[in-house]
Amino acid sequence: MSIFTKIINGEIPSYKIAEDDTYFAFLDINPNAKGHTLVVPKREENKLFDLQKDEYLGLMDFSYRVAKAIEKTIPCKRVGMSVIGLEVPHVHVHLIPLNEMADIQFSKKEKLTNEEFVALAEGIAGNFI
Amino acid sequence: MSIFTKIINGEIPSYKIAEDDTYFAFLDINPNAKGHTLVVPKREENKLFDLQKDEYLGLMDFSYRVAKAIEKTIPCKRVGMSVIGLEVPHVHVHLIPLNEMADIQFSKKEKLTNEEFVALAEGIAGNFI
Repeated sequence: MSIFTKIINGEIPSYKIAEDDTYFAFLDINPNAKGHTLVVPKREENKLFDLQKDEYLGLMDFSYRVAKAIEKTIPCKRVGMSVIGLEVPHVHVHLIPLNEMADIQFSKKEKLTNEEFVALAEGIAGNFI
Repeated sequence: MSIFTKIINGEIPSYKIAEDDTYFAFLDINPNAKGHTLVVPKREENKLFDLQKDEYLGLMDFSYRVAKAIEKTIPCKRVGMSVIGLEVPHVHVHLIPLNEMADIQFSKKEKLTNEEFVALAEGIAGNFI
């Protein structure tokens, strides 16, 4: 069972943004930038392009809605998207508020307090439609 | 007019992978890794999440088909996806064959000859369905 499945099941706590029957979005706890969010299919699949087309497009649709909510909440030039997956074998879309190239290079990290994570999650969740 | 529009119009040559009425895919000429491909909507739009939902999902669908062709052609652990856009204000999806994290960090670059680009484009185009 992947760490993301444990998060979805509530066995590991997370700062949840949104969910429906098929997808789940929550804050990355080791964020590149404030508001860095992960969107995952609830069903475990290792690689993005091994998802069936419908599930893949559903994930992209859900990610679009989350990205719009992030853009409304976090001051940034734009929200970037990245899917890598070399570490956790459960498909996850990174949505990252970008101000500079370094924000999407996974080299610099932001340290946030619990209160900051809670406020970010509430802000983004409140703008999710 | 963006540099990608000039490529789509044939004013600037490119190593084309595939196109339809709405989308165009070609090799990045400053690739992170062999097979690094860009997928763009033919209509110029600056930001990914400013695309209308239909055009966005169409771009993701086309990118899925291109990614499958790259995975068939290029030995790699998986194909990664990244949309950043801080440099060229015309939406473009990076599809990058990944073997290590550095392949998607835009820090190391691969030098290829014209012959290598031609062979890569023909190989990937031949696997595009």
